[in-house]
Amino acid sequence: MRAANTRPSLSEEARQAMAQVDGSRLIGMQRTLASFGGREDGGVAREALTATEREARRWLIQQVSGPRYSWHVDAAANLFLRRAGTDDSLPPVMTGSHIDTQPVGGWLDGAYGVIAGLEALLALDSAGIDTRHPIELAIWTNEEGSRFSPGAMGSSAFAEPASLAAFLGSTDASGVRFETERDATVAATPEALNVPLGRPVRAYLEAHIEQGPILEVSGCKLGIVTGIQGVRWFEITVCGSSAHAGTTPLDDRRDALMTAARMVARIGDRAASLEDPALRVTVGRFDTAPGAINTVADRVTFTIDLRHPEEARLAAFEHHIREIVAQGTGRCTAEVRRLMQRTPTVFADEVVSIVEAAVATSGEPSYRLVSGAFHDAMHLADVCPTGMLFVPSHRGISHNAAENTDETDLIAGARILAAVLTELAC
Amino acid sequence: MRAANTRPSLSEEARQAMAQVDGSRLIGMQRTLASFGGREDGGVAREALTATEREARRWLIQQVSGPRYSWHVDAAANLFLRRAGTDDSLPPVMTGSHIDTQPVGGWLDGAYGVIAGLEALLALDSAGIDTRHPIELAIWTNEEGSRFSPGAMGSSAFAEPASLAAFLGSTDASGVRFETERDATVAATPEALNVPLGRPVRAYLEAHIEQGPILEVSGCKLGIVTGIQGVRWFEITVCGSSAHAGTTPLDDRRDALMTAARMVARIGDRAASLEDPALRVTVGRFDTAPGAINTVADRVTFTIDLRHPEEARLAAFEHHIREIVAQGTGRCTAEVRRLMQRTPTVFADEVVSIVEAAVATSGEPSYRLVSGAFHDAMHLADVCPTGMLFVPSHRGISHNAAENTDETDLIAGARILAAVLTELAC
Repeated sequence: MRAANTRPSLSEEARQAMAQVDGSRLIGMQRTLASFGGREDGGVAREALTATEREARRWLIQQVSGPRYSWHVDAAANLFLRRAGTDDSLPPVMTGSHIDTQPVGGWLDGAYGVIAGLEALLALDSAGIDTRHPIELAIWTNEEGSRFSPGAMGSSAFAEPASLAAFLGSTDASGVRFETERDATVAATPEALNVPLGRPVRAYLEAHIEQGPILEVSGCKLGIVTGIQGVRWFEITVCGSSAHAGTTPLDDRRDALMTAARMVARIGDRAASLEDPALRVTVGRFDTAPGAINTVADRVTFTIDLRHPEEARLAAFEHHIREIVAQGTGRCTAEVRRLMQRTPTVFADEVVSIVEAAVATSGEPSYRLVSGAFHDAMHLADVCPTGMLFVPSHRGISHNAAENTDETDLIAGARILAAVLTELAC
Repeated sequence: MRAANTRPSLSEEARQAMAQVDGSRLIGMQRTLASFGGREDGGVAREALTATEREARRWLIQQVSGPRYSWHVDAAANLFLRRAGTDDSLPPVMTGSHIDTQPVGGWLDGAYGVIAGLEALLALDSAGIDTRHPIELAIWTNEEGSRFSPGAMGSSAFAEPASLAAFLGSTDASGVRFETERDATVAATPEALNVPLGRPVRAYLEAHIEQGPILEVSGCKLGIVTGIQGVRWFEITVCGSSAHAGTTPLDDRRDALMTAARMVARIGDRAASLEDPALRVTVGRFDTAPGAINTVADRVTFTIDLRHPEEARLAAFEHHIREIVAQGTGRCTAEVRRLMQRTPTVFADEVVSIVEAAVATSGEPSYRLVSGAFHDAMHLADVCPTGMLFVPSHRGISHNAAENTDETDLIAGARILAAVLTELAC
């Protein structure tokens, strides 16, 4: 659905900030950031809290200067570039994202949200605008979760400071502790003053590439994100009995693989039959034991990643899964285990409507959608009015050297971001 | 179907040999052989051409003595205990099987065919019978194929001597060559004289445990094996496109796992719908890439082991497989590759009818069936009149410490074997 034109008015300051976004500067900074960990294939290898990420952080803090700016870091190594407000005691308006990547990521992903935020600050400088609230650009720590588990450590510890303690002992594949690398990362930006986790925030807006195909398919340049899907993860284990492929009649088998394949097919059929465009059902893992060509499998474990923006639909499909598994065991046994659950995130009307107003002013075609992926904004939404803004991704590809977005779309997104931050902070 | 009583007559010598089978001696030898590589859990670890198998071979040749006996070995390290005939220039009647096991096997499997054959020779000795043809007990090399690939090297090289050259360079997991271990195994039995591969054989009869549940279910103690199923192996590769589980709408996916699961389910449904008790269709491997819980799979490879005693049914089901795969690709692509094909083996009427006669004389309930598994007899059937005799396996379990057969059934099988060898050799 196209954005309803519910709030066409946008302040003069917001329009000025939007006008001062410098597309060349934005793209130039985006490409420079991509050079930290840049690969010959166009991909970027910049995992969380590595020396490469520390260099990129040092480069970022050098991009802002002057009396308005200061730098801050907290106990999760979240880094904040702060542009002072005229009433600097007010809680900041925040934007940002993360600059860590998967082992091989693309040049945009979280990095786009950081660079778009940086360009918005510079646009405010160019426009000579003073905002009442301070504005902070946040670089959240370890969003990807590929080096240290779980992901989104920085933003979740910001929203719930007590969660940090459990993260400190997390180790990477070579046994290095998160705590050690956090300390080294904090030490790498000595300009940054310590700030506590869980500070009050006026509002948060994060720009990100969509990492999905919806905007591209719809031909829209901007996605007004109204929330983040809820998710439930399941692991289904089917137990049968191994048997010789040649000697065991079909009727006598307890064939875990055939049983599991039929369950997967029925789950797929049920999902398709609902014709619900917001439903996501993915069986991504299907592990078979013993996995020999001439042996009936005695054990299969498969997973389901279920997502929907509405909690009731998640619950209804979980019921379908349990029903299909219970009815489909045949001569095997089966067990459904819920591995993870996260309720849908609904973004604040206040932020969403300002984004809509900015989009309406820009004249760009836009689309209201719900994020299918998790983002740092999910955790910020627990503590302040939050929204997100998507730009398209070519063919929905992300976490991959082939990840890309048209430069004009990157620029259009930064313009909206500059306008909305100004509107929220003035 | 019960064995038809087509040839009730059995020679007096055969009846005498049958009567001299000593159940205690048979079970004692079977348990002694199981002690070479025996495990605390009752399983046996005696892989092909290991020091353990060499010790077992040495023990075997010590079980026969006297002027009638000699020992022979060929270039595939097949070992033969030969009981001379009154016309020793005639080709031998052979029996036997293999004593190598899977990494962990049971106490019976091929070892039963060897010990039953040994007991048959000793029963002939006890009965004081001289046969016209010599009788040889064959211990075939590397039937299992778990240490060196492929399996049944010994019997296939016997039937087709030119195939040996390709086996010599086969290496085990630690890089040891088949040729090296063959030489060491030949050297371990210096009593054995060299004989060529591909010698003429009068007839071959192999006793084996069923490794399937049919006899147990039918309540029969003896299986008259009329042939070995044909088999075709296939590998199906389904290619799609990896995508984010949260951001990619179901309609936009090229989901290799869901597509493959539907194919497997349809193949299973087709197999079930044919209601053909001789058909075996097994999907034993199903490998998924990238195999992450929150990523749509871009590639699945699964296998099909298809068996049937009739070539036309194999061809018809291969057609079903190709049709189901071609019609089920959806937005993915798929390819069917045939990895292996072996036409059904039909055993010689001459041998099968003598087995039937012996069974009829014994009074044991019996069942005519087709072997679902491969055996050394499959290769012997290419060069001489061949048959097999099955005894039941508890719950069809084999290649496992839990493999077992009632002692009375083991004894009943050895009695039939002694009678048939006598009948063929006199």
